[in-house]
Amino acid sequence: MLKHFTHLKDFTIDELNRIIDSASDLKKSTHAVLPLAGKSLAFCFMNPSLRTQVSFSVATNALGGHPLILNLGSGGTWGMESVEGAVMDGTAAEHLKEAVPVLGRMCQGLGLRSFPTGKSWAEDRNEPALAAFIKYSTVPVINMESASGHPCQALADLMTIRERMPPKGKNFLLSWAPHIKALPMAVPNSSVEIASMAGMNVTIARPEGYDLDPEVMARVKKNCAMNGSTLRVTDKVPQAFDGQHVVYGKSWGSIANYGQAPSSDPAFRKKWTISAAKMKRADKAIFMHCLPVRRNLVVDDAVLDGPWSVVVDEAENRLHTAKAVLMYLLASQPKRMTAAARRHRK
Amino acid sequence: MLKHFTHLKDFTIDELNRIIDSASDLKKSTHAVLPLAGKSLAFCFMNPSLRTQVSFSVATNALGGHPLILNLGSGGTWGMESVEGAVMDGTAAEHLKEAVPVLGRMCQGLGLRSFPTGKSWAEDRNEPALAAFIKYSTVPVINMESASGHPCQALADLMTIRERMPPKGKNFLLSWAPHIKALPMAVPNSSVEIASMAGMNVTIARPEGYDLDPEVMARVKKNCAMNGSTLRVTDKVPQAFDGQHVVYGKSWGSIANYGQAPSSDPAFRKKWTISAAKMKRADKAIFMHCLPVRRNLVVDDAVLDGPWSVVVDEAENRLHTAKAVLMYLLASQPKRMTAAARRHRK
Amino acid sequence: MLKHFTHLKDFTIDELNRIIDSASDLKKSTHAVLPLAGKSLAFCFMNPSLRTQVSFSVATNALGGHPLILNLGSGGTWGMESVEGAVMDGTAAEHLKEAVPVLGRMCQGLGLRSFPTGKSWAEDRNEPALAAFIKYSTVPVINMESASGHPCQALADLMTIRERMPPKGKNFLLSWAPHIKALPMAVPNSSVEIASMAGMNVTIARPEGYDLDPEVMARVKKNCAMNGSTLRVTDKVPQAFDGQHVVYGKSWGSIANYGQAPSSDPAFRKKWTISAAKMKRADKAIFMHCLPVRRNLVVDDAVLDGPWSVVVDEAENRLHTAKAVLMYLLASQPKRMTAAARRHRK
Repeated sequence: MLKHFTHLKDFTIDELNRIIDSASDLKKSTHAVLPLAGKSLAFCFMNPSLRTQVSFSVATNALGGHPLILNLGSGGTWGMESVEGAVMDGTAAEHLKEAVPVLGRMCQGLGLRSFPTGKSWAEDRNEPALAAFIKYSTVPVINMESASGHPCQALADLMTIRERMPPKGKNFLLSWAPHIKALPMAVPNSSVEIASMAGMNVTIARPEGYDLDPEVMARVKKNCAMNGSTLRVTDKVPQAFDGQHVVYGKSWGSIANYGQAPSSDPAFRKKWTISAAKMKRADKAIFMHCLPVRRNLVVDDAVLDGPWSVVVDEAENRLHTAKAVLMYLLASQPKRMTAAARRHRK
Repeated sequence: MLKHFTHLKDFTIDELNRIIDSASDLKKSTHAVLPLAGKSLAFCFMNPSLRTQVSFSVATNALGGHPLILNLGSGGTWGMESVEGAVMDGTAAEHLKEAVPVLGRMCQGLGLRSFPTGKSWAEDRNEPALAAFIKYSTVPVINMESASGHPCQALADLMTIRERMPPKGKNFLLSWAPHIKALPMAVPNSSVEIASMAGMNVTIARPEGYDLDPEVMARVKKNCAMNGSTLRVTDKVPQAFDGQHVVYGKSWGSIANYGQAPSSDPAFRKKWTISAAKMKRADKAIFMHCLPVRRNLVVDDAVLDGPWSVVVDEAENRLHTAKAVLMYLLASQPKRMTAAARRHRK
Repeated sequence: MLKHFTHLKDFTIDELNRIIDSASDLKKSTHAVLPLAGKSLAFCFMNPSLRTQVSFSVATNALGGHPLILNLGSGGTWGMESVEGAVMDGTAAEHLKEAVPVLGRMCQGLGLRSFPTGKSWAEDRNEPALAAFIKYSTVPVINMESASGHPCQALADLMTIRERMPPKGKNFLLSWAPHIKALPMAVPNSSVEIASMAGMNVTIARPEGYDLDPEVMARVKKNCAMNGSTLRVTDKVPQAFDGQHVVYGKSWGSIANYGQAPSSDPAFRKKWTISAAKMKRADKAIFMHCLPVRRNLVVDDAVLDGPWSVVVDEAENRLHTAKAVLMYLLASQPKRMTAAARRHRK
């Protein structure tokens, strides 16, 4: 059966931990394995990227495969339509109904980064581009960040935590942070979802009006109940930092005021920027962030440059988990059908 | 002698069929051959691309070579001058007289996509950028779509037809289609040229004022005469669909009103959009299109999603024919002269 | 110790000549050596490029490595901050303090092209982006053109001269040329610096107000004194061409009127454009230029297309010297520390 890696909710924590085990092995490995030899992978970006682009490119090459970076809608390729039945007299020159199967004829795996538009959460949460990739693809699809989640980041996050502590029973704080834009909710969603799957006690500190999506929160609540761990949502900072083992800093936009930048009021910013004083209240916590991070707005230099920060190790683990995801999806895939076999099947 | 693959008219149908035979072999092949090992190829795009970019990139890598995608004039590289004797005080920062030989010193083959400007057909038909590549290059040049033709697409088209029927004596319809822009004539030119070379009866259905270039039509006429096949140009749709075996849908701009978008009048669009009703008049025809295609403007969903459509198979054949073109141009090339030999020659 | 290749002043002429010796060997070599197997290199461009991009990409691949081209600030990646302590509420979404170490965890070498902003020479000469790469990188850094220099170009330049004459005691003219923009001074700086290091007599012909940076000129003066060669700065053209063996044409911006385009007065342009008449005054000189070059503004067709021009050979040597720089930096590097060793070290 065709495997994808697109949403955490499709996996058990045991399955995710097995992928991370494989990433840990690959991290230590000095042996060259080339399970992707002869395979090409198209990593499609509708939004900018640094770590995701580099990690999947390097990971694919390290496993013997051929990575292609395609900037859809810019950088030499046109915009894509995803709505079924659309009359295509607008800006999009091609429908994903053609583009995705065509890429699947030329490549053995596809990745997609597609951010929300920031206009309507009701529409964005449907993830039309990712849904189209999953629907139309004949080869495995990797979600390289969608409106609802960033499962590749979550794998690297849990790997980074596992390298420092057994996550079960430890305290995980997701702390909202100021920004000049209404950022996507993918990373905060996935970070609390995987933390709750791993049996951590979860605290979310955020201003009123910045609650995460109810669907995600329902899964987090269920995970915590199943694991006997606690779940708390609060706007009390710095108190929320007390006793935490992992502090995950992240800015995201409000669903209530969808697409609007957070307040730039200096007092509000000061209250929510992650500072050394806050980190000192935690229990020798590590500080995590998915990067890119705006210094002295999201988090102070003193935190990023201090003993708490594991953000560069966390970023490095994007490479190892990217390899593990590629191995999971492609190393044991049955051989691609020949064109003759395909025609025969029809 | 230096070989290029730039215009259909430089080849006989036997030569083209031998390239397609090689593509068919490569399509079935499970053996890795690496005739391009140690070779780098620069694929230069002055216009956007999806299939062409991915197919040449994957094909080059699959044959052991190293593909470079260069977006000339955007994406990190400046615009190029092609006019001899130009005083370069405008926007172009480099002349192809330098850029092409330099690329030829670093790479073993070059590809160029260069669309018409849409300002003057008299100038566009001279294909100044492609002509400069051919003139200045010391390594094989591949035309990845110019003003006058898209021979790589034509190879994939004929391969797709050959996989379904022996083309000789069969009926081929090129049917014009609505669009929001005045699109290039490269694909319609090449599609009817190769169909006529392959001995098919050719019908071109287009509105008044949308005739193809007289030079191309003269060759098509000659091919049909030589093959004893018929050639018909008509504005009668849906009647033109009657009895066709291959329907090739495509929009293109008018030479008479050069660069102007076609009428957006709903009745005109309805008349020319390719519909299931039209396809039903044909003789169990296959529906072809080079992609990207604007659904429900150029062609209805019912056609693309119906039993007629072979557009994804046709796109896949871009990969196999790309490999065959690379093999044709480079697998038997003499070794590149050493710098010492080059200096000696001077 | 970590090696970089960022500024000519960090090297002796013997060290540079050894790198060029290695480039000459690689140019003649028909043997495949793959010292970069398993290594990925990220070439980061904040400005456009053709030769640099292609030469490092081809060189890396030819040595068995995996080149990544990253267009920072465009083409899919956001802008980067380099100022320590910055409050990042502007356009830059990431600090090089994170981006560079992260790239160093995923790649085994980094390149950076970062032009001056053209607003303040006092700020530009500090090369904030390159300085940040050097400061934060844990892997070798290559300067692919900064505000102050273009050492990779200088290597190819000296290699090209050495292929035609022993440089010591020969006459080298850097001749300023007209342009529509105030171009960076990197290439003229590096060209006279390496010529003076190689023991050539240096003449700089430029209009009043177009002197090179005093720091560079101090080193050039010292080199000439050490080598017993002459150094002359003049605005007398065409006289400056008399008796020259190497003419290096190049436009650059004025420090005095920083960022302002040179005069477009036809008489001024005519005086400074490099012409066949001027070349005929030289002593069978070769004509060099780093490319891209604006024909008939910087230099006349008659020079570029005449017997003097070695610009394409010079560009080809960018490939061979790129290989030699990669070998110098990476072929003998100690193995990258494992993550475990890194953590142990902390």
